[in-house]
Amino acid sequence: MLFADVDTPALILDLDAFERNLARMAEAVRGKPVRLRPHAKSHKCAEIALRQVAAGAVGVCCQKVSEAEALVAGGIKDVLIANEVVGAGKLDRLAALARKTQLAVCADAAENVNDLDAAAARAGVRLDVLVEINVGADRCGVEPGAPALALARNVAASRNLRFAGLQAYHGGAQHLRSVAERSGAIARTVDLVRSTRALIEQDGIACATVTGAGTGSFPLELASGAYDELQPGSYIFMDADYNRNEYDAAWPRFEQSLFVWTTVMSRPNAARAVVDAGLKASSVDSGMPQTWQLPGVDYAKASDEHGVLAIAPGATAPALGAKLLLVPGHCDPTVNLYDWYVCVRRGVVEALWPVSARGALW
Amino acid sequence: MLFADVDTPALILDLDAFERNLARMAEAVRGKPVRLRPHAKSHKCAEIALRQVAAGAVGVCCQKVSEAEALVAGGIKDVLIANEVVGAGKLDRLAALARKTQLAVCADAAENVNDLDAAAARAGVRLDVLVEINVGADRCGVEPGAPALALARNVAASRNLRFAGLQAYHGGAQHLRSVAERSGAIARTVDLVRSTRALIEQDGIACATVTGAGTGSFPLELASGAYDELQPGSYIFMDADYNRNEYDAAWPRFEQSLFVWTTVMSRPNAARAVVDAGLKASSVDSGMPQTWQLPGVDYAKASDEHGVLAIAPGATAPALGAKLLLVPGHCDPTVNLYDWYVCVRRGVVEALWPVSARGALW
Repeated sequence: MLFADVDTPALILDLDAFERNLARMAEAVRGKPVRLRPHAKSHKCAEIALRQVAAGAVGVCCQKVSEAEALVAGGIKDVLIANEVVGAGKLDRLAALARKTQLAVCADAAENVNDLDAAAARAGVRLDVLVEINVGADRCGVEPGAPALALARNVAASRNLRFAGLQAYHGGAQHLRSVAERSGAIARTVDLVRSTRALIEQDGIACATVTGAGTGSFPLELASGAYDELQPGSYIFMDADYNRNEYDAAWPRFEQSLFVWTTVMSRPNAARAVVDAGLKASSVDSGMPQTWQLPGVDYAKASDEHGVLAIAPGATAPALGAKLLLVPGHCDPTVNLYDWYVCVRRGVVEALWPVSARGALW
Repeated sequence: MLFADVDTPALILDLDAFERNLARMAEAVRGKPVRLRPHAKSHKCAEIALRQVAAGAVGVCCQKVSEAEALVAGGIKDVLIANEVVGAGKLDRLAALARKTQLAVCADAAENVNDLDAAAARAGVRLDVLVEINVGADRCGVEPGAPALALARNVAASRNLRFAGLQAYHGGAQHLRSVAERSGAIARTVDLVRSTRALIEQDGIACATVTGAGTGSFPLELASGAYDELQPGSYIFMDADYNRNEYDAAWPRFEQSLFVWTTVMSRPNAARAVVDAGLKASSVDSGMPQTWQLPGVDYAKASDEHGVLAIAPGATAPALGAKLLLVPGHCDPTVNLYDWYVCVRRGVVEALWPVSARGALW
């Protein structure tokens, strides 16, 4: 099928750009003392995870037990749930999955460590647990230093758990716009990581892995030498928000490979076009989607099923019925709106990949 | 199953509140010279549409051909696609569906009218077409007055189409906060509707139906006498955005019936709790979700899989593992994230209703 004939709205993956992004990330870590563990929360797709592993990743991260279940069902053998899992039902599913595959999870509270231990006991497994530390994002995580040591001791003392290291992801740093700002934030993060790891190891507890980093910061964690694993997710796709970041010459340049394909469904006047992709087709939490290579035609406003394009005087305006590409404002929640990637190479649809963990929230 | 045992995140429908909302809308239009045609874009659920019809609605509206297909498959016999449908593939599906059920669609361009006529001819059906006029939302729609008349003539002159009336929905007016602002906007809308209808009827073209209105404005369109059909959608659920509107004593009071059920997954410190419902569990396009009946505990920030709650000094803070209800910021795109409504009555799960048109974008 020709790409031009695909109906809209649809989630499009440009395979050439996607594969170049995979290769650039592989190149960035080649020969470095670090493992790549891409975050699958961005793509929720076993087909993509398998390609990341084929390109050198040791496995993937995800955020939810149901995502891990979908990825393992799709053939992935090493998953880190880079997040806390709370509640007996979820913990039993987590422990059951750990009987089938290499699985690790994070914790940031002693009570949760006890519950993890009990679930592992019920399932007859030993679970790998990383202590999540708050390195500046002020979301989950215990404070670095003494609180992290106390929790690492809890994990290490639990009969059915293994202390596997530290989760140290600075989400808030990913979209600081300048390299200088991101460098400053990650420098502080690295100090916290080093001192906390040292404290734990001085206590006689081996800290096998420090893991973290995202698409907006990973060269900084990599250069620090303080991280054993990197967790970037969005690099395979990119989005309008990541494209607004400043990157310097040392930074790998990832290409936009993910698009929303949309049709002009109304041309009420010379200054306005309306497309059929609105809030339910492209997430606007990090700003509006952007038109792709259409100078003077800006996606100005989204409602549930409509996007209003503002056409500048003199710009070449798309006609009624024309199809065009949008760059999602934020890739992760946009992917979660779709059941399929329409995978395109040079104008031809090559594959449909299911978003196998779409809606996998629990 | 007890509601308390439902795992999170989940989309919860409080059936008592939902049924009271259905009854209040039925009461609002009882004995009035107007038909109720609720908008199914909000719920995307045939089970709910059937209950709306049982409560007196003549049928429903929706925005997409794929939504109409799902609703008709679920037993709905009268659907208005309150939107333009563009592209040969969609038009053929539209015409095929019109062979099975009462179906109408909107148009705002002569080119689209020609395409609708051709698709109806291919399918051997006569399609009902309403002319959409721009009554202030500045999205789709021809301008009222002469441009609307010209398009109505096009429709009326098309062999395989029937001119069914005017679509006149003022989306921009729904969330003007004060009753006075909404009254002013709808008064202007009503003037445009009356003068355009008169122009068309003076031309000898019958204008059977004027349809429009939403949850934020429908008592105004109703009181005007200028509308034959009302299209409110959100009244069955409500959301944080609609709850911010001012309503006066004459306005029916709809209750919050739709919630996102979430678990506290981290309690890093006294001022912060983190819940497991983020951007992929509750749309933030119209502001953050709100906690339900938890004074001093505010949903402050959403990321993909996390919501950060800010706990005011002295507030009763939810414990790690506690489950709580969120009021979605905007009901329509939140519903579209879920596969099921968990329907609850007085603490017990009574039914699961599929979001049958979830992801139906095309």
